[in-house]
Amino acid sequence: MYRLALIGAGRIGRIHAANAMAHPDLTLSHVVDPFAENADPLAAEIGAQVASLEAVLADASVAGVIVASSTDTHLDYCLQAHAAGKAIFCEKPIDLDLARARSATDRLKDARLFLGFNRRFDPNFQALKARLDDGSVGGIESLQITSNDPGPPPLAYVKISGGLFKDMAIHDFDMARWLLGEEPTYLFAWGSCLVDPAIGEAGDVDTARTVLKTASGKLCVIGNSRRSGFGYDQRIEAYGSAGMVRADNVVESTVHLWTEAGAQADRFQNFFLDRYQQAYRAEMAHFADILAGRAKPSVGYADGVAALALAEAAAESVKTGKPVRIPHG
Amino acid sequence: MYRLALIGAGRIGRIHAANAMAHPDLTLSHVVDPFAENADPLAAEIGAQVASLEAVLADASVAGVIVASSTDTHLDYCLQAHAAGKAIFCEKPIDLDLARARSATDRLKDARLFLGFNRRFDPNFQALKARLDDGSVGGIESLQITSNDPGPPPLAYVKISGGLFKDMAIHDFDMARWLLGEEPTYLFAWGSCLVDPAIGEAGDVDTARTVLKTASGKLCVIGNSRRSGFGYDQRIEAYGSAGMVRADNVVESTVHLWTEAGAQADRFQNFFLDRYQQAYRAEMAHFADILAGRAKPSVGYADGVAALALAEAAAESVKTGKPVRIPHG
Amino acid sequence: MYRLALIGAGRIGRIHAANAMAHPDLTLSHVVDPFAENADPLAAEIGAQVASLEAVLADASVAGVIVASSTDTHLDYCLQAHAAGKAIFCEKPIDLDLARARSATDRLKDARLFLGFNRRFDPNFQALKARLDDGSVGGIESLQITSNDPGPPPLAYVKISGGLFKDMAIHDFDMARWLLGEEPTYLFAWGSCLVDPAIGEAGDVDTARTVLKTASGKLCVIGNSRRSGFGYDQRIEAYGSAGMVRADNVVESTVHLWTEAGAQADRFQNFFLDRYQQAYRAEMAHFADILAGRAKPSVGYADGVAALALAEAAAESVKTGKPVRIPHG
Amino acid sequence: MYRLALIGAGRIGRIHAANAMAHPDLTLSHVVDPFAENADPLAAEIGAQVASLEAVLADASVAGVIVASSTDTHLDYCLQAHAAGKAIFCEKPIDLDLARARSATDRLKDARLFLGFNRRFDPNFQALKARLDDGSVGGIESLQITSNDPGPPPLAYVKISGGLFKDMAIHDFDMARWLLGEEPTYLFAWGSCLVDPAIGEAGDVDTARTVLKTASGKLCVIGNSRRSGFGYDQRIEAYGSAGMVRADNVVESTVHLWTEAGAQADRFQNFFLDRYQQAYRAEMAHFADILAGRAKPSVGYADGVAALALAEAAAESVKTGKPVRIPHG
Repeated sequence: MYRLALIGAGRIGRIHAANAMAHPDLTLSHVVDPFAENADPLAAEIGAQVASLEAVLADASVAGVIVASSTDTHLDYCLQAHAAGKAIFCEKPIDLDLARARSATDRLKDARLFLGFNRRFDPNFQALKARLDDGSVGGIESLQITSNDPGPPPLAYVKISGGLFKDMAIHDFDMARWLLGEEPTYLFAWGSCLVDPAIGEAGDVDTARTVLKTASGKLCVIGNSRRSGFGYDQRIEAYGSAGMVRADNVVESTVHLWTEAGAQADRFQNFFLDRYQQAYRAEMAHFADILAGRAKPSVGYADGVAALALAEAAAESVKTGKPVRIPHG
Repeated sequence: MYRLALIGAGRIGRIHAANAMAHPDLTLSHVVDPFAENADPLAAEIGAQVASLEAVLADASVAGVIVASSTDTHLDYCLQAHAAGKAIFCEKPIDLDLARARSATDRLKDARLFLGFNRRFDPNFQALKARLDDGSVGGIESLQITSNDPGPPPLAYVKISGGLFKDMAIHDFDMARWLLGEEPTYLFAWGSCLVDPAIGEAGDVDTARTVLKTASGKLCVIGNSRRSGFGYDQRIEAYGSAGMVRADNVVESTVHLWTEAGAQADRFQNFFLDRYQQAYRAEMAHFADILAGRAKPSVGYADGVAALALAEAAAESVKTGKPVRIPHG
Repeated sequence: MYRLALIGAGRIGRIHAANAMAHPDLTLSHVVDPFAENADPLAAEIGAQVASLEAVLADASVAGVIVASSTDTHLDYCLQAHAAGKAIFCEKPIDLDLARARSATDRLKDARLFLGFNRRFDPNFQALKARLDDGSVGGIESLQITSNDPGPPPLAYVKISGGLFKDMAIHDFDMARWLLGEEPTYLFAWGSCLVDPAIGEAGDVDTARTVLKTASGKLCVIGNSRRSGFGYDQRIEAYGSAGMVRADNVVESTVHLWTEAGAQADRFQNFFLDRYQQAYRAEMAHFADILAGRAKPSVGYADGVAALALAEAAAESVKTGKPVRIPHG
Repeated sequence: MYRLALIGAGRIGRIHAANAMAHPDLTLSHVVDPFAENADPLAAEIGAQVASLEAVLADASVAGVIVASSTDTHLDYCLQAHAAGKAIFCEKPIDLDLARARSATDRLKDARLFLGFNRRFDPNFQALKARLDDGSVGGIESLQITSNDPGPPPLAYVKISGGLFKDMAIHDFDMARWLLGEEPTYLFAWGSCLVDPAIGEAGDVDTARTVLKTASGKLCVIGNSRRSGFGYDQRIEAYGSAGMVRADNVVESTVHLWTEAGAQADRFQNFFLDRYQQAYRAEMAHFADILAGRAKPSVGYADGVAALALAEAAAESVKTGKPVRIPHG
């Protein structure tokens, strides 16, 4: 049984806490959060103790930490936890600043650091990846990643989110790298403000199309919108030399209604907590495997930096109106 | 170019007229209908002449007749046309009375008589049949035929229709025989009046479930309703030893609408004139092949009698509440 | 925290054990099983103690029992547990003998006995029920229940299973009663042996079609096969006066493969442990609500007897070839 | 009855000939083709006469011409036919050279010239357009046009085709203009050679992604490949402020096969002659309406020039690696 500390007891932290408690090999022994109103009720509920970060890192009985605090603290906590010899499960993104994230390369490149790009653990995207890997559609040639949120977040969040590309599309950049099997070398992006003018006034876009190109000419289009109008829209189409494989949206049930208006399927699962419920569980199982030495992190620090590099490049492309070369891509 | 006479210039007769005119090997030279308001405009439109049945049958230049008159005249016109040496394309059913229909066996069993069970010519049901024939699902074991009309016909028609089984389910009995590859030997049916009490008062049912059983134990369920609530519902599922093949309803277009309410497909094609448009064309092409000696009728007099026998058995089963043995398969 | 005893540590018992342990309000304190090789490892794994039935029933700290033992013991254990004041979660069926089951009516009709008809807790069938209840398709008129297993069980099991109707279709009879909103008053069934002749030699059928009819004329068809050829086939179509609602099979993932052969969806979930995983969890949550007094059993002893009555009637109909009246149905 | 002349008796010319002959208001009186082996059999088959272009244009009884000759002759024949007072149904593209096409503006901008962008007449894309027009998804914000051929044409054709953008994507540029309701002002494209290196050696690309942007920020992505691996792939997704509408591929039949491998739909209709059969018929009906004065060309010379401008811009963008501004877009 591995004892874990949770750093950050907000919404996603509580998801990870529940999954850790439900895993037979894991228990959550400590909760770290500067706000007692977050830390206390969660600790009480699961029988953990509230502690300071220092105390947790100094406690030899703690095998790993879950970093689910605010984004600007991710990198620092990872560095501290790694220095203290802990295994790390860190929420994405690794940081909002590429230069800063890269400055930690020497210290983190070999860390037992699992970065929570949850979509890699979604059963549907895993099934798509399996079809690519087993050659069902021949060699991959292009990708179409569709990733639209049901509706925009509060404006206050938009302003500190790092922008659409670092906050939202960063998942899609990771998917692209995971599925293309080759690093993108060029990127072009256009963004618009079609959903809410206030987002534009805050210096961000709410709608974007990004095209990636690899050295061998593979192409990937990423479509993003802060508001779909029909729920959480998370789909991928991968074209190979012998066909196409796609993963579709997930519906609430298999029920269809047939009336004079036509055939109507059930709603799509509304947002990420529903859509990726199984993925979050699978992430925790992977972290247990890392702790037990049964697995190395399947996605880690370097992946976080690479996705961030693409996100910064996309923002730059929107600003300059020109394609951007991805260095060392 | 084969010259044809159309007997009966009503709704279905006009469909056949258009298809005959559009066929490169056929032309419609005569229109026979006791009502001048039916015959005259159609004849004028297509450049045919209005004629009496006697004149048509005596005209050696007429190679075939299309019998699309009222049901009670089908058998008689077939007998006359056959005696005159004409090829016959007769609308279903062959008659509403089984004993009467059977009385013509000696005279019609070898006739060039093509009976218009149009569903055998539907591309979707033909694709289903092809999968059964090529062994895609192993040997057939059971069938589910779903056949619901959008809404009930006028009560006046219900009263002369011969009842739900002879008027509507007769198509499904023919489908069952075509697909099972073995004659049903027993039949059980229950009927209810759920759509309109007036249909019950007229001595008919508007909702029914019929089960057929063959000597080897194959089972077929036919579901019928005079009113679906969502359009023309024409589906078949065929279970084999190694899987299942099904033919679904046909939609107006491939368009799907995704809104907060879910994903909505387009409406089903509304009724038989739309749903079976291609089937009616294919029927006429088959009749041209018969006229040219390139084919024998793929469905004929004996099939009409066999379907009628099942329809009478179903009505009897509803009346007695007991299974009915089908004589001579 | 309610302490529970598990009676029967076989396959389904272990599912319930895991769900009980995962529920925040429940714990499994005792395991009862005559075979130590079943009881010991499970008890060790979850930290429960192995005990005799007598000890468990005499232990006032045990609030409820889960009866997951062999079918012939269900009724007896329910009677004992109820006499000892325990809440009961009993696997279906309540018994294999209708007369015997009915003999317990006086003693069990008011028991806190929750009968595990798991399909009522499937999210897809619940979504279908919700559409019926909210009037989306008008008043219900007919049902089509499709329920085919991937493949037949071992012959040894077939022989003690009670036959296709009590072993397999009993779920469908319960679904029919739940959804029709009216008791069936007549039943007709035909059965065949198409999958394996040995099943026929054992006195059973492996393929069946059953038709139910209510007093108001609602019709329900149940289709069963011991072998589908394509996985676990569990679908329901409910026709109302204004449309149709259906619940389809559940696929492993949303992935579709497009190749020259057409578009291929992923496999269906293979069998009941996958297909009804969520349903089993929801059952345990309902049992927790019963223990806490927040709910009465939504399906209980009387439902078990009613479904068994339909199963016996179906077997009788197959034997006699005649419709059967359901007494007091 | 309007008498028409067909100029160019190749594959697409024969399609138009058949549709003209089947239309009640049209007849094909003349066939013009420099190759007697094309012109003679078609003229014989439909009862038309072979004639020179000069003779046809001088014949006052000819109301209109169908220009289905090789692309490099389109513009010249349109100019001649318009000068002779004929109505024109011209196959796309209007020309392969933008400057040359534009040079005809003064002479052709008011011509009765119907340009055959057939996809505007496809029932599925028309249904999609109808949903956009009726506000079903709110105001349009972005488009995803997917347009992949089953396999590449012969290399000899590739070399004279004008390249992927003018030969193939030109349809998609027209769709974009039709559906966006606003002219694109900027375009960016990347192309690759992934299907056949010989296409690259011929100076063309076989795989491309193009992004269009309008003045108000609407975005459109066009995906093209010369080879899909799974048939003719013609789909459109249109996102609006309140949802999404999409038109999917068309299958050969509604048949699905369920086996151990999963559920398999029928093949997609293989190529444009099947997929757009109804569209070609609807085009001819529109031309009849134009001849009768019941309609003005819904798509004409200016649309042909505008689509060609986008195609040239795309080729330029691929060459320079930079976005291109669309003048007067």
